[in-house]
Amino acid sequence: MTVDTQAVEFDSISLESGAKLTPVSIAYETYGALNASKSNAILILHAFSGDAHAAGISHETGKPGWWDNTIGPGKAFDTDKYFVICSNVLGGCQGTTGPASINPQTGCPYGMSFPVITIGDMVRLQTMLVDHLGIERLLAVAGGSMGGMQALEWAVSYPDRVIAAIPIATTARHSPQQIAFNEVGRQAIMADPDWCEGNYYSGKPPGRGLAIARMIGHITYMSDESMREKFGRRLREKEKFGFDFSVDFEVESYLRYRGSQFVTRFDANSYLYITKAEDYFDLTNPTGSLTAAFQKVTSRFLVISFSSDWLYPSYQSEEIVRVLRRANRNVAYCELPSNYGHDAFLVDVAEQSDVIRGFLASTCKENI
Amino acid sequence: MTVDTQAVEFDSISLESGAKLTPVSIAYETYGALNASKSNAILILHAFSGDAHAAGISHETGKPGWWDNTIGPGKAFDTDKYFVICSNVLGGCQGTTGPASINPQTGCPYGMSFPVITIGDMVRLQTMLVDHLGIERLLAVAGGSMGGMQALEWAVSYPDRVIAAIPIATTARHSPQQIAFNEVGRQAIMADPDWCEGNYYSGKPPGRGLAIARMIGHITYMSDESMREKFGRRLREKEKFGFDFSVDFEVESYLRYRGSQFVTRFDANSYLYITKAEDYFDLTNPTGSLTAAFQKVTSRFLVISFSSDWLYPSYQSEEIVRVLRRANRNVAYCELPSNYGHDAFLVDVAEQSDVIRGFLASTCKENI
Repeated sequence: MTVDTQAVEFDSISLESGAKLTPVSIAYETYGALNASKSNAILILHAFSGDAHAAGISHETGKPGWWDNTIGPGKAFDTDKYFVICSNVLGGCQGTTGPASINPQTGCPYGMSFPVITIGDMVRLQTMLVDHLGIERLLAVAGGSMGGMQALEWAVSYPDRVIAAIPIATTARHSPQQIAFNEVGRQAIMADPDWCEGNYYSGKPPGRGLAIARMIGHITYMSDESMREKFGRRLREKEKFGFDFSVDFEVESYLRYRGSQFVTRFDANSYLYITKAEDYFDLTNPTGSLTAAFQKVTSRFLVISFSSDWLYPSYQSEEIVRVLRRANRNVAYCELPSNYGHDAFLVDVAEQSDVIRGFLASTCKENI
Repeated sequence: MTVDTQAVEFDSISLESGAKLTPVSIAYETYGALNASKSNAILILHAFSGDAHAAGISHETGKPGWWDNTIGPGKAFDTDKYFVICSNVLGGCQGTTGPASINPQTGCPYGMSFPVITIGDMVRLQTMLVDHLGIERLLAVAGGSMGGMQALEWAVSYPDRVIAAIPIATTARHSPQQIAFNEVGRQAIMADPDWCEGNYYSGKPPGRGLAIARMIGHITYMSDESMREKFGRRLREKEKFGFDFSVDFEVESYLRYRGSQFVTRFDANSYLYITKAEDYFDLTNPTGSLTAAFQKVTSRFLVISFSSDWLYPSYQSEEIVRVLRRANRNVAYCELPSNYGHDAFLVDVAEQSDVIRGFLASTCKENI
């Protein structure tokens, strides 16, 4: 199944900061068919560096979507049954308006004049897309990591429009450790002289800083265990230490490769804006209480975490579950055993698929 | 008690890589008095960014030593009883020969022409210092993190010269995750255009890269818990998000501060060489077996780890303990409860002091 990324432009969007973006575009893909009652739509929400291409083979690049093992005919999000939508987030660099987009006021890329955005703003733009597609109520919203934050935001801010929410490997608010890892990545980008205060679009992008930021990210996405299994202390194409500063260990060459690859497909300013949106995310705002945030929630929930995920540890999911249960909401929780760390929601999907499949089936049974 | 750092120069040292350094200096401090039988000497081994100034108040800077809460009259390493020595490691930048030292062959700083060094080389230079002080056998060697690696190396390579070893919060070999964090730090330094392939001594040092490296380090030294306790999501000198890229959260300002402070006292090339020495450290070399490495060990051991230390997790200490016990060596092990993460061996020292005090007393009773 080959797919094309589509886009729709809206006149403007008002942001949480008070700023307004005029106009705003959103890139998206859809898989499967919307039924006549428009009751089978599921919105997939991508993580930090994802995009709208979640499933199928891209017509343009020939590459499979980032969650192709989870979305498709007969898969967890079964496109024989459901109409699945995925869009690129606001502030992104894969078709949706972001800092690399042209500011119509100036004719130049926004750069750092792009307004600061929040997870709430990303979701607000998604509601406009869902309106555009003529869908009043989503059967489900689902995503991992930053995608999970968006799923939570949907359930909290648009309770009437979401029947079920599936937040995976995520949190109701970024912890100082999570903020800290993001901040070091931002500092690495901003320390790169090629960053030029964000005005690098006519020249060389800050590739060194962005690669460092991505290397840090990759360490946090894996687990101590999965790194031992994948790399151990194996040396790279040699039998002995080099006793120099070339690559000695396989893990070093892996990180350098992932860092350099990322630079070819991601915009450094998007890195800054999207990580900042993650750090600002805090469902306890403004009351200070998660219980208050979940007061108006009506969706049913499937919350998933992974045993070896130390970036978004299970205790963060369990806090969400505890508060929802206390409020007598319908919530199922699975901590799945996996060695893959935070990456598990993308790569270790057999059990995850089973629980999602079951949860969606029961959601349909009770609601359609 | 004010102390002065001293130094001694030796003609040369042969390194594990096959290279030779001519001459080589080592900076050190001593606390307490060596007894007549020279049987009360304890060598303290510093961690990655430490120096010879472990205790007392520096005559030069007025600052207390990095382990002043643990070394001194009546403290864990009781200077009323013991003669305590601490030296700066080979490759360092606090008085011992390192990449910032002048290469007598060229009259210029070594920079990246400095030979690659290992933990074994650091310890070899320490044996020369101990010889110089006229001490045949050390009552104990002790240190945390990279200091613990040196303690292990002493026990393995110089079994006749060490009565007791106290490796704290350490490992017998760096894991891929530990290598990965070091590698990102190195890449951050080497990506800084001011690094100039290591030839920055006549100009501006690569302060931005070094600060990034240090920020990453600080995240790994703390725990998720200690960061929540210390910072939470508290905002810095404002009541609301800035909706910009200035500092929002206290954790951000803490990291930026620690990064910028480090640059004033540490040499970026030393960062490269010392982290590489850590990464090369592997007691299972060349046989592939820790059991074989511990074959000739005769010291008694006190191994300490901390419950919330995720950089050098307890399982790494437990592996050392397991192998030593299997070889029927005298080994005590404590996993101490602490929220402070890897930093615990420096800051959460009450219980650590108790177990060290008891272990040293029993060592004296049995051996002096």
